Order: sequence, then structure tokens, then C-alpha cells
Amino acid sequence: MQEIYAVKGNIIYTKTISEYTICENGYVVVLGKKVKGVYEKLDEELSNIKVLDYGDAIIIPGFVDLHVHAPQFANIGLGLDKELMPWLEAYTFPEEGKYNDVNYAKEVYSHFVRDLWKCGTTRASVFGTIHKEATKLLMDLFAEAGLGAYVGKVNMNRNSPDYLTEDTQASITDTLEMLNEYKNKYELVKPIITPRFVPSCTIELLKSLGDLAKQTITPVQSHLSENLGEISFVKDLHPDARNYANIYDEAGLFGDVPTIMAHCVLVNEEEIELMVRKRVFVAHSPNSNCNLSSGIAPIRRLVTRGVPVGLGSDVSGGHNLSMMSVIVSSAQVSNIKWIESNRVDKPFTTAELFYLATKGGGKFFGEVGSFESGYEFDALIIDDSNLPTFRPLSIEERLQKFIYTGDDRNIIDRFVAGKKITEPNCYLR
Amino acid sequence: MQEIYAVKGNIIYTKTISEYTICENGYVVVLGKKVKGVYEKLDEELSNIKVLDYGDAIIIPGFVDLHVHAPQFANIGLGLDKELMPWLEAYTFPEEGKYNDVNYAKEVYSHFVRDLWKCGTTRASVFGTIHKEATKLLMDLFAEAGLGAYVGKVNMNRNSPDYLTEDTQASITDTLEMLNEYKNKYELVKPIITPRFVPSCTIELLKSLGDLAKQTITPVQSHLSENLGEISFVKDLHPDARNYANIYDEAGLFGDVPTIMAHCVLVNEEEIELMVRKRVFVAHSPNSNCNLSSGIAPIRRLVTRGVPVGLGSDVSGGHNLSMMSVIVSSAQVSNIKWIESNRVDKPFTTAELFYLATKGGGKFFGEVGSFESGYEFDALIIDDSNLPTFRPLSIEERLQKFIYTGDDRNIIDRFVAGKKITEPNCYLR
Repeated sequence: MQEIYAVKGNIIYTKTISEYTICENGYVVVLGKKVKGVYEKLDEELSNIKVLDYGDAIIIPGFVDLHVHAPQFANIGLGLDKELMPWLEAYTFPEEGKYNDVNYAKEVYSHFVRDLWKCGTTRASVFGTIHKEATKLLMDLFAEAGLGAYVGKVNMNRNSPDYLTEDTQASITDTLEMLNEYKNKYELVKPIITPRFVPSCTIELLKSLGDLAKQTITPVQSHLSENLGEISFVKDLHPDARNYANIYDEAGLFGDVPTIMAHCVLVNEEEIELMVRKRVFVAHSPNSNCNLSSGIAPIRRLVTRGVPVGLGSDVSGGHNLSMMSVIVSSAQVSNIKWIESNRVDKPFTTAELFYLATKGGGKFFGEVGSFESGYEFDALIIDDSNLPTFRPLSIEERLQKFIYTGDDRNIIDRFVAGKKITEPNCYLR
Repeated sequence: MQEIYAVKGNIIYTKTISEYTICENGYVVVLGKKVKGVYEKLDEELSNIKVLDYGDAIIIPGFVDLHVHAPQFANIGLGLDKELMPWLEAYTFPEEGKYNDVNYAKEVYSHFVRDLWKCGTTRASVFGTIHKEATKLLMDLFAEAGLGAYVGKVNMNRNSPDYLTEDTQASITDTLEMLNEYKNKYELVKPIITPRFVPSCTIELLKSLGDLAKQTITPVQSHLSENLGEISFVKDLHPDARNYANIYDEAGLFGDVPTIMAHCVLVNEEEIELMVRKRVFVAHSPNSNCNLSSGIAPIRRLVTRGVPVGLGSDVSGGHNLSMMSVIVSSAQVSNIKWIESNRVDKPFTTAELFYLATKGGGKFFGEVGSFESGYEFDALIIDDSNLPTFRPLSIEERLQKFIYTGDDRNIIDRFVAGKKITEPNCYLR
């Protein structure tokens, strides 16, 4: 028999991108790991179930981070003075080189998972490093914490420092080992095939990974068209390619299985067309795109065209793990885009961005990111009573104020797939 | 006899915009309200003074907020879905209308001052409302808290709702009353002449305020060239004016006394020339400029040309009182400007923006914002031990990490003009 219970409070979520669904002082009834329904009152048949009464608190779906690099957590808030390619060389690659040491990985990764928990991220799609043992450990830590994640062992076999350059066959073998070992090990933590990006992977490697993805029906994540320097490097490497996206597509890594492409700041019309057709998810990471001087992604255009979009912290190109910071940054860059497009690309509302940060990215995980019946119950309980207010606010206004001015102190409980999740352990070397 | 004492810790500040001055495990010696000097060791003659030993903490100058609206604190994090002019009509003016009620003002203003304290702002240049009693109260609350501030009763006599439209003569009389009563009342809290902006003030009012400023040698603050809609309204109102800045200048409100102009997003070359010549301070408020779809101010150009620049939170156009958020936002928009100017306008480093957030804005207050000898001792003590680090960091890196990933929890003590400042009272109606 599955456990049944209700959480009571002011419920707010987004079924569609255009508007909130609100149930003040209502109940989310949870059966097993899923939402049974949202109710203003509990019927006779539900009158005896356990109720977690959160009083005047706000209850929202957990946040989904569609793009984040676990090893870069060690560099968070540091070294933000370069563009992408020199930034990788100066800060990121040297840090990632350390993860052949599993003890070091355990220290950083356990703090990373704890901080994701702290800021209310309940699902994440995560890059590890090329190192299989550290990446397995990261998956174990996610499972131990009770958070949901896709976790990728990164593949790199060219244009990288020696210590991060894999032998092509070993890269494939290690990836296959991870898939075999972890595909069914955990319910909420799954492997994902993760070629870093075109500059770091030969066509041979990309094609092998594409084959592997299709054979094993494993999802894929990578980076696409983030920064001018990167794009011009890709052009130098593949002068005959139709475009950047097409290189992934020809390798079978562009939507043949569920696929996330981070950034897409500078995609062209043909690439957008391909993304629409193949249902490729975009992980919009505006903090990172601003920090690394990449630019502003055409997210309004992508959403209007029907490309599935979620939000990503992209730590440590992004400086903040909190999806609240990513929502604010997304709103800000969309306002700048609005002006710069001569008022063509409409700014995003808080409701729209809240949708992208929950159900938008959640779709990659299945029925996640909403309180509709059948959705996995991922939720945050928000006590906003410490945020100064001087008039009665609607639930929608309270949510906006929390997103713009609150922080982890306001999140008093977290649920993932029906279970309340307590603070994960941090380990030290 | 003036009190003498030292604070001990890792001292970091900026004498110039280009670099940090760092004294690890050193002493700032404070004599009365001023810095006597920064020392690696205390000499014989200083060996007996009281030492506040903050161990491994970081000691930085207090933050200076060069542009913030106290009454808008009630709207912080709300209503960020419009551009400037409709935003004023929909959210700001109705809120400001409430400050004829001194009890309401006391509640909001005391929370505002407490939150400034909380996030480490030690000096601020503040807009009140048109209401003299509420504005006097705000000055009293700053003084009671021990924070430094210029506080302005706002002047408005046209194009505003009835309840915010002053009679011209009454506007001047009330302003004069404030100046007389508060000019010498407090050492750290002073009045500032505050015409809201050209659209809200007739030329007659502006000229009278300009005369008043010059007669009483009172500084001036206002808004300049923030948003396209505003600028086009100014053009409609004054079709024959040379430019927006010139309207202030002809009224004697543009640098004849020390002057702050907020925003300056869309200033033209002639206006910049005038700002250089008349030493007009710019309050750069990028959070607000992004939230209200105003654009990105040409701050690199202004700094290079020698215009004095400080940073402003501009709550509630800005959503965050913390100057750390404003530093991060300033870096991000400068990176976007870098790309959009075809790599002409160089991005700002953290050190440069830290300078603007301390000494840059501090100059408006005199010798404020640095630990050079003779500067008023405004300081924050930063305990960053809760920020996860996995290798030894330099003091400069620790400061960057605090700015990008820390918050008020890391600020364990605050000093203003030599005095340790405890948490201000909050009042309720």
C-alpha cells in the first residue's frame, strides 16, 4: 500500500507558461511519490489522512536546474574575468583535473549536493568530469541525499589539457560501464551521455556516443553556441559543417533521444528549426552568459517557436546555484533583449520564468515541476514571514517577493518524489 | 581626548580604481571617527591601545548606496513588469502617496534603515517623498541608527497624481524648512535638494531649487536620461532644450553644488562633456536599469572620461538593497556592453566595482569609502568561513567569493565614522 498524506498551505504552480494556478489554504494530496490532486477541502474519503499543516506558508514545486557543473562548484564566485574559452583554460580545466582523486571529489561533491538542497533545487541535470569513479560517487551522493538528477561522465578527447584528454576507446568504454552500472541502480538518479562540446570531441567520439545513446535509450546533454570565440573555433575545426547544431545531429546527438543543449545564445534560424523539429531542450543560463560575456540568448523566440526551455544555473560560469537568482537574471536579460530588439522579443513575466524553472525544465525528468495529478511530488515550503510587507499581498505577489528578495532561509522543507528530504551530509577529506 | 583603537584582521580596500590594497592579518587604527592608518604591526606608541581582534575575518570599507528611494522599500521585489513611466504610475506613485501618514512612514522607514544596516550599507543618498514630516522622521531614524545619509524631501509640482502634486511655493517653503532644521542637526545625516526629475518639476520650481542649493550650499540629487519613454516625454515638454542635462544646468542644478544624477543610461556626448566639466556624480543602478527595461549605461566611457561614478541599488526599481548584488549586476551588464560595443567598452573587474561601491560613491560624502589615513572609519567585518572553499584562497579571492556568493549572514560587525553600529530598531504602527 502506498502512503497517502496531504500538505496544507497556499499552493501556487504553473500548469501552462502563461499563468499561475493558485489554491489558497488548500491541500496537495500525495499518494506514494505522486500528486493525487490539489483540493480546497478534503473530501470524506480523504478526511482521515495525515496532514502536514504549514499554516500560512507558500507551497511551490521544487526548482529544476537544467544545467550545472558539479566540479566547478569549487570555483563558484571566483575567476569571472574572462570569456568562455580562456576561462576554461585558466580556471575550469585545472579544477576538473583534480577529480581523479575520489577523496577530493567526495568533499566537493557532497558540499555541492548539500548546497543544491539548501537552495531548493530538487532536480538537476549535471556535468561531472571525465573521471568515472568521481562521477559514480556523485550519483551515489545524489541518491543518498534523495534528490533527483541526471549525471554525466564528461567525454573529451581533443583540444584539452593532457590530464583531461581521454583515449577515444577508453572514453566510450567508461561511458558504457557507467550506463550499465547506473541505468537501473537508482530511481531518481540516472546517467546521461555528456560530450563536453564539439571542440573537445572528435567526430569519431561523437558518433560512438550517438550510437550508444540510441542503443541504450540514454538521454544526452552538451553545450551549443554559447560564445563567439567558441563558435569561431568550431568553424575552424569543421569548415564544411552546415552549422554547429548539425555536427551534433549528424552524430545522432541532437534529439534522437531526449537532449539538452545548454546556452544556445547565438543559434541561427536553421539551428532553431532543427531544435523545434527534434524537440531539443534549451538550458537557458543567463547568469553564466552575462558573467562570461557570451550575450543574451533569444529565449522568447525559442519559446514562441515551441522549443522546450528550462533554466540552468551553470555554476561556475553562473555564480549562484539558486534558481531564484536565475529567474531574476532571466527576467533582466529578457528586458534588455526587449529594448535591443526594438520591442519585438517580449520580456518574460515572473510567472513565465517560474514555469521555466519548474515545469519547463521538469519535463525533461518526466512529469515533474507541477502539482497536476500524476506529477511526482517535488515541493518547497516557503515561510516568507521575515520578508517585510506593509500591506496584504496576494499569493502571486508573495511568490514574486520571495523570488526577488528571499533566499534559502525562507525554504523550511523540501520534498522530492513524495519524500521529505533532510539536509544531506557533507564529507571532508 | 579622542578614543583610539584598532581592528585586526585581513584588510582590503581600494585607494584607486585599478587595484586593491591588502594588509593580511593587519591593523586599522582608528582615532575618533577617522582612520589613523593601516599597519602590519602596532608600533611601541600604539602597543597599549584596545584591539578588536577579528581573527581570520576580512575587513572592508562599508558600502555606499548612491541612489535609493526609501518609500519604495514597501514595494521591493514587487511589480517589476513595466517600463519606467507606467511603473511610476502603477506602483510607485500610489505607494508614495501613503507617506502623508507619519505612522505608516515610521513603520516602513524603520524597516528600510534596518535592512540597509543588515546588508552592510553604511552611507546612502536617499529619496524620501514630497512629505516633509515623513522625510524628517527618516532623517531622525538614520541618525538614531548611526548610519550616514543624505536624505531628500522630493519636489514635484506637475505631471503627477493630485496627491503628489505640490503647490510650487509650498514645495520651496517646505524644502527651506527642512534645510534650516536639519542642516546642522546631525553630523552624519544631512538634507539634500531632490527635484524628482524634469517631468515632475516646472522650470520655475527647478530654478528656485537651484537658487536655494547655491545660497545654502546644499547638494542636489535627481534622475537623468534613464529610459526612452522618459526622455521622449522630456523632449515633448521642452522641445527647445539643448538636451535633458541642460535643463538641470540652466536651473543651477547640475554641479554648481555637489550633484548626483541617477542612471544616465542614454546620455549623449554633449551631456557627458557637461558632466565631466561640472563634476556631476553618476549613480549607476544596473539592477533597476535591467528590471525597468531601461538599458545599459555607458559606465566605462563615463569613468574613462573622468566622470565620478558610484553605485546605486535604486530600490524598488532595483530589487535588492545589497550593494553586493549591485556589484555583480554592474559586472554582468558591463560584460554585455563589452560584446555589444564590439569589444570597445572594457568590462569592469571586481576590484573596479568594489572601488565604485566604496570610495567611488564615498567621495560624495567626503573622505569616505577607504582606509587611507584621514578617512572616516566606515567598515564591515566579513566572516566568510561558511562559504565552502576547497583550496587556500587569497584575500582578494575571498572578497570576490563573498561578493558573488555571500550575503548579510557573513557581515558580523559594522562601523560608521569610528563607531560600532548595532541593529536598528524596527517600529510597527
